[in-house]
Amino acid sequence: MGLKGVFLLLIFLFPLCMAFAIPTTLFPRVHYPVDSLKQVTSLKPKIPFETRFYPQLLDHFTFTPKSSKRFYQKYLINEQYWRNGAPIFVYTGNEGDIEWFAANTGFLPDIAPKFHALLVFIEHRFYGESKPFGMDSYNSAETLGYLTSQQALADYAVLIRSLKQNLSSEASPVVVFGGSYGGMLAAWFRMKYPHITIGALASSAPILHFDNIVPRSSFYDAVSQDFKDASLNCYEVIKGSWAELQQAFTEEGLAELSKTFRTCKNLHSVSSVRDWLWSAFVYTTMVNYPTEANFMRPLPAYPIQEMCKIIDAFAPETSKLDKVFAAASLYYNYSHGEKCFNLENGPDLHGLSGWNWQACTEMVMPMTCSNESMFPPSEFDYEEFATDCRKKYGVSPRPHWITTEFGGERIEEVLKRFGSNIIFSNGMQDPWSRGGVLRNISTSIVAIVTEKGAHHVDFRSATKDDPDWLVEQRRQEVEIIHQWINVYYADMKQDKKFI
Amino acid sequence: MGLKGVFLLLIFLFPLCMAFAIPTTLFPRVHYPVDSLKQVTSLKPKIPFETRFYPQLLDHFTFTPKSSKRFYQKYLINEQYWRNGAPIFVYTGNEGDIEWFAANTGFLPDIAPKFHALLVFIEHRFYGESKPFGMDSYNSAETLGYLTSQQALADYAVLIRSLKQNLSSEASPVVVFGGSYGGMLAAWFRMKYPHITIGALASSAPILHFDNIVPRSSFYDAVSQDFKDASLNCYEVIKGSWAELQQAFTEEGLAELSKTFRTCKNLHSVSSVRDWLWSAFVYTTMVNYPTEANFMRPLPAYPIQEMCKIIDAFAPETSKLDKVFAAASLYYNYSHGEKCFNLENGPDLHGLSGWNWQACTEMVMPMTCSNESMFPPSEFDYEEFATDCRKKYGVSPRPHWITTEFGGERIEEVLKRFGSNIIFSNGMQDPWSRGGVLRNISTSIVAIVTEKGAHHVDFRSATKDDPDWLVEQRRQEVEIIHQWINVYYADMKQDKKFI
Repeated sequence: MGLKGVFLLLIFLFPLCMAFAIPTTLFPRVHYPVDSLKQVTSLKPKIPFETRFYPQLLDHFTFTPKSSKRFYQKYLINEQYWRNGAPIFVYTGNEGDIEWFAANTGFLPDIAPKFHALLVFIEHRFYGESKPFGMDSYNSAETLGYLTSQQALADYAVLIRSLKQNLSSEASPVVVFGGSYGGMLAAWFRMKYPHITIGALASSAPILHFDNIVPRSSFYDAVSQDFKDASLNCYEVIKGSWAELQQAFTEEGLAELSKTFRTCKNLHSVSSVRDWLWSAFVYTTMVNYPTEANFMRPLPAYPIQEMCKIIDAFAPETSKLDKVFAAASLYYNYSHGEKCFNLENGPDLHGLSGWNWQACTEMVMPMTCSNESMFPPSEFDYEEFATDCRKKYGVSPRPHWITTEFGGERIEEVLKRFGSNIIFSNGMQDPWSRGGVLRNISTSIVAIVTEKGAHHVDFRSATKDDPDWLVEQRRQEVEIIHQWINVYYADMKQDKKFI
Repeated sequence: MGLKGVFLLLIFLFPLCMAFAIPTTLFPRVHYPVDSLKQVTSLKPKIPFETRFYPQLLDHFTFTPKSSKRFYQKYLINEQYWRNGAPIFVYTGNEGDIEWFAANTGFLPDIAPKFHALLVFIEHRFYGESKPFGMDSYNSAETLGYLTSQQALADYAVLIRSLKQNLSSEASPVVVFGGSYGGMLAAWFRMKYPHITIGALASSAPILHFDNIVPRSSFYDAVSQDFKDASLNCYEVIKGSWAELQQAFTEEGLAELSKTFRTCKNLHSVSSVRDWLWSAFVYTTMVNYPTEANFMRPLPAYPIQEMCKIIDAFAPETSKLDKVFAAASLYYNYSHGEKCFNLENGPDLHGLSGWNWQACTEMVMPMTCSNESMFPPSEFDYEEFATDCRKKYGVSPRPHWITTEFGGERIEEVLKRFGSNIIFSNGMQDPWSRGGVLRNISTSIVAIVTEKGAHHVDFRSATKDDPDWLVEQRRQEVEIIHQWINVYYADMKQDKKFI
């Protein structure tokens, strides 16, 4: 899951709680060392994929002269297990290079043979090589304006339909898969395009993280609960560390802090330390996997427990900053390769990136830190957020649009009477699970929840070290997908058109 | 139903078969006397409506700077039967002034009292007073580009949500109603926005009239069948009349024709006669109602039967043109007020009208005339059609977009496993019924088909002359809607949020 995870983590973390009395930036930077990026891009898929490009329409929902512009949308395809008429498994790409998702969704190559499935990974518009205006795509709202989830879903619909026609396999059932934002897209795709896909496996898809559907503090409360479950002392040390950090906001304090955090260059602000720690705790929570893994960075099995062991091993009187530095080092330096840390020089991933645009337009996920969280308490100031978006992009967010377009409120009542064939899988270690669907809605819109699972762990390649619950989770998912497909073929047999 | 009917008929008739060897225009004009328009606009709704305007977003699906422009969308509201928490009945306006639809959907005021329902008629963008660019709205593709069915559905979603919030009645169940294109919108709205509406009554909604889902000749075959059912001789006279008409394409012939058709001015072409006759036969078929009605024009009960009686009363040797003129006169002159007919001077309803734009972009409904029809055989020449659209509007149609966005192919297989609570009502006299859903798909996606019904006859105000089958049809519809609402309230009771 290496790269994919990294990417998701970075971009999903956007709505950090406001830390400290005077936040230095509305969206604290997430540090992400350049060398780690390089490492991740070298990952390869388990099986070879052919790269293709589809001439996609810029704007499906209007007919202005500009709307009919075409751009080349990238997709990856593997036919090695497929036979005509057999299922087509489509990964609904999220906010990144589709190669990353193909390399990090071993689950699909793992299960394709038993379904004789065609595998297709479609890149999301405006990411990777699928930029409608090339290098100019991110210039302004004039171009970025076409980066929306509904356009992306329509892209998938158009491309899948064309692909099936070209393969002369129009009767093939299509199942969509996605993780994180990709999981949201997969679930929404099934809801909006049931005539194109027979079902969706949406892994770690926080489709309820909009408006006030789930409590705004739930994300950071979940992070905190994971640490508290590992060790109460660990949780309290982290919770207390922010006050110590804030006290260091003097020239001398920064010099001392630079030493404590082994920074390569002297620090100029405490906010970079705050963000660095914050990222370590949040990302580690998301990837609190049961096995050693290299999702974002190399980490041991159950890394939260390991972090807390480090904190708990210190003498009680040691400064909290020393303790949290040591804990964060597990995340940043598990392989012990780093001599010093660049806390202030990471690439500006909060610049004009695609996800930031999406977060400033439709993907408004308000988050707060409650008094119970291990982070400093904070509110979500919508006006401040909106002002910042207008300043950055010249657009105003539409904070209620996602729930208008895709629903979410009273989702159980709505979907128990409408729709079918969606699996929402969530691991409760993952703080995003709190914005996911965690209970069965109907006989065929089901939740698979694993207490020890983390961010779309089910999509990782199977390994010999996988715990039983993970093996069982994947078995269940495969079984349900088999049922969908069997019902589809049975229906098809009854439909004279296809006999 | 007066005005609404007229309007629908006119705009829905766009894909006329190509008549004669050399069609004079790709889209034969439909004659529509100005005095009739005046008559129709004087119709008033059965109950008073308050007119309101909602500041609607120009483009829901992009975030370009232009997309955030607001325009005022008109809607009509009547609260006289309503109480807070009770149902909201929304008419999803189609291609015309919303006043017309309110005036011509007596069914809703008829049933509102027993539901204590709020009535809302929302105007479709680009029609009536809801023109996003005012007088410039129809200038070019730059402005017209925002006239699409998906934008219209999103308008309805946003407006309904806002309305419920303003009424502090967010728990009110919403049921949507629509006839003809409005029926397509109602059905699609339930499919795409199940979180906003609990069900849809889609009357005479030809959602399958796209691509090759239903045979392309079905519309005109249905018209012909209605005439054949009335009288074989009648059908044969009409079928034979086109050849006689074609022979009149000389100076002398036209002079003779002008006399036969009692034209106010001398004719310059036979195509205007062809279109005049064509309109009479097609429109009469659509409104072949069981009672005397003034839907488009005043007509007797079962006007096809009356037309055929006129034709059959002639001596066999009389010229066919004399016979069809007399038959068409029933349609144009039932009240005997016309001294002569303006066949060539009707308003240009096929100019830059909204429906022509929609037909040239997404609403591509290919139609042909088979050898069995009473019209001259013809094919649908897509290239010619697309070229004409490009010439007229500078845009290319997207002929497969509606089926990609809304489905339609294998609809029974898809919707029996997905979705709920849609009534598709169709009258088999109406040729549009052939593109409708005519069989139950599941226990809650049902078809109500009446052999003697015509174009959304169920939406007309109840009258004392209504036949039993029509009374029964409306009773069934009300009963089903009652069930939806009861289930919704029962679900709500179980949902703690709303107790």
